[in-house]
Amino acid sequence: MSELRQPVLIVGTGLLGTSLGLALRRHDVDVLLTDRNPEHLRTATGLGAGHPHRGEAIGLVVVAVPPDHVGAEVARSLLTTHAVVTDVGSVKTAPLRALEGVDGIERYAGGHPMAGSERSGPLAASATMFDGRPWAVTPHTRSSPAATAAVEELARLAGATVVRLTPEEHDEAVARTSHLPHLLSVLVAGRLAEAPLDHLALSGQGVRDVTRVAGGDPALWEQIVTGNSAAVAGLLTQVRDQLDVLIDAVIMGDRGSLGEILELGVAGTRAIPGKHGGPSRPTTSVFVSVPDHPGELARLFADAGASNVNIEDVHIDHDPGRDMGLVELLVDEARADHLLASLESRGWETHR
Amino acid sequence: MSELRQPVLIVGTGLLGTSLGLALRRHDVDVLLTDRNPEHLRTATGLGAGHPHRGEAIGLVVVAVPPDHVGAEVARSLLTTHAVVTDVGSVKTAPLRALEGVDGIERYAGGHPMAGSERSGPLAASATMFDGRPWAVTPHTRSSPAATAAVEELARLAGATVVRLTPEEHDEAVARTSHLPHLLSVLVAGRLAEAPLDHLALSGQGVRDVTRVAGGDPALWEQIVTGNSAAVAGLLTQVRDQLDVLIDAVIMGDRGSLGEILELGVAGTRAIPGKHGGPSRPTTSVFVSVPDHPGELARLFADAGASNVNIEDVHIDHDPGRDMGLVELLVDEARADHLLASLESRGWETHR
Repeated sequence: MSELRQPVLIVGTGLLGTSLGLALRRHDVDVLLTDRNPEHLRTATGLGAGHPHRGEAIGLVVVAVPPDHVGAEVARSLLTTHAVVTDVGSVKTAPLRALEGVDGIERYAGGHPMAGSERSGPLAASATMFDGRPWAVTPHTRSSPAATAAVEELARLAGATVVRLTPEEHDEAVARTSHLPHLLSVLVAGRLAEAPLDHLALSGQGVRDVTRVAGGDPALWEQIVTGNSAAVAGLLTQVRDQLDVLIDAVIMGDRGSLGEILELGVAGTRAIPGKHGGPSRPTTSVFVSVPDHPGELARLFADAGASNVNIEDVHIDHDPGRDMGLVELLVDEARADHLLASLESRGWETHR
Repeated sequence: MSELRQPVLIVGTGLLGTSLGLALRRHDVDVLLTDRNPEHLRTATGLGAGHPHRGEAIGLVVVAVPPDHVGAEVARSLLTTHAVVTDVGSVKTAPLRALEGVDGIERYAGGHPMAGSERSGPLAASATMFDGRPWAVTPHTRSSPAATAAVEELARLAGATVVRLTPEEHDEAVARTSHLPHLLSVLVAGRLAEAPLDHLALSGQGVRDVTRVAGGDPALWEQIVTGNSAAVAGLLTQVRDQLDVLIDAVIMGDRGSLGEILELGVAGTRAIPGKHGGPSRPTTSVFVSVPDHPGELARLFADAGASNVNIEDVHIDHDPGRDMGLVELLVDEARADHLLASLESRGWETHR
């Protein structure tokens, strides 16, 4: 794309803008930076994310400013340049409304990398922040194919995987996968703020994981949530209805209702696609003959571990009348052949 | 303690029982195992967590069965042995009620390691599961000092840090730090179960973290939640009240209320003690003179990174009239001297 052979201008050198600059510099893209905060700009240039913009011509503008200001900044970029313009904001329909009637709107296609941190500012930036992450590209009805293609190339150059959605689909999707989890995490964390100190000493990994995102910048999240209020309020209301059912089930000791809610949660965790976008892998069984005493079973587990194949489950056929047992190992289908070969090379008798 | 010089019997070879066996075997404690499920028992012994119990005399019994059965199993152990008895169950007052009037109750002191996994069963076990984790030890009013001391020694041998609480305090504490986070995680995950597939493609690290624990075994969590229903229902009701305020704030675009809720969440994440039980560390400033051009600043950040000190924040004193700027790095107080020495050895002029 010619747009990325010309300099890319990143407007805003916070966490995302600086990380994007660092990611693009890995591919020697010419990156120019600007920010109203001179300290952020100097930190970002100091980190090697790009050079300060001194009015050079540019092919692509990436607006990486707080959500409240995205619409105005995109409009300004469309009016003051001939470049393709995109943004990395967390909501997509609200800024579009601010762009109605703006000249050059066909040069704009929105974007949203699903990456970030509970920390903010250029110092928290990383060149690898977008590697393997989804990057929503959200052309509106009048976006030109060239503009959309340039934004998709940008996302791929940054290391991300493109997911194309309409702005409306995007906002529904992130209400569910980002804004709702954030707000519920905040409510859990809020209960910790009021806890006796010695109770907090029992905090394990679970509560840390559930509440990590709640540490995010409140000023940013205020803007995100109000920018997507209809979708967010709809989901919060669904959760309140479920919470009422849950509270009743807990008070009444109604294990049936409680079990249904817990099972739906398990189904939800399974619905999240694998890290690289694929569904969870099918498993297959590998059978191994094992002399019937504990030392041999320990040796089998050790050998299986050494072959670097994750064992999902195990069944042991225990027939007291035989001195050889059959052990069934459940493993990722794609790794079964490797495990079989590895165990055979260590002297085990295997069966598929 | 003489109790740990005699064999330790672990009743139940699921995730926690097997992990405890593996952890104790690191210190050559003689570990005996029993389980109603022969496959679990054979897997646990196969992994090296201990040997099957054949009626040998024992010094300490650890009951590691599902919450519903803890009270009955502790009672049985008190009546059939002369050993100290503890358990690793997630609730502490409910099983105590089942023990009223049982002979030998002074030999029982409850326990609860704050460790686990969304996976279950002996195959998910790990010898390092308890390393550095809190382990609540919860003697009741009639527990003997010797029994409590033996349970505390067990927890420390497993690698954990002892936190002593009454059974009532424990149940209040885990309602807040474990059961509430779990249930809210389940509600977030439940919304994912009903999502369009292409919306889920936008799932990032945040939603994965918030919902990880929701993948836990529903049959186990049903027992935990109903075993601690009063404390859990109280906190859930507080969350519902906050959720009502939140929904109104989102619908009305009331940034003041929204901001207050978000700020309370941030305060909650800061209230969680550091991984090793300490409060978050104080920071201090390190000042460095830097020649006023971007290449030097990049070199400073690289050198600071190489010294393995995490920079929490940075301020750059930008005086256009000078060709030398002063950069202020905020770092962990305990690491400041190391950073100063490291930067000086690389030729930087530093000030404290």
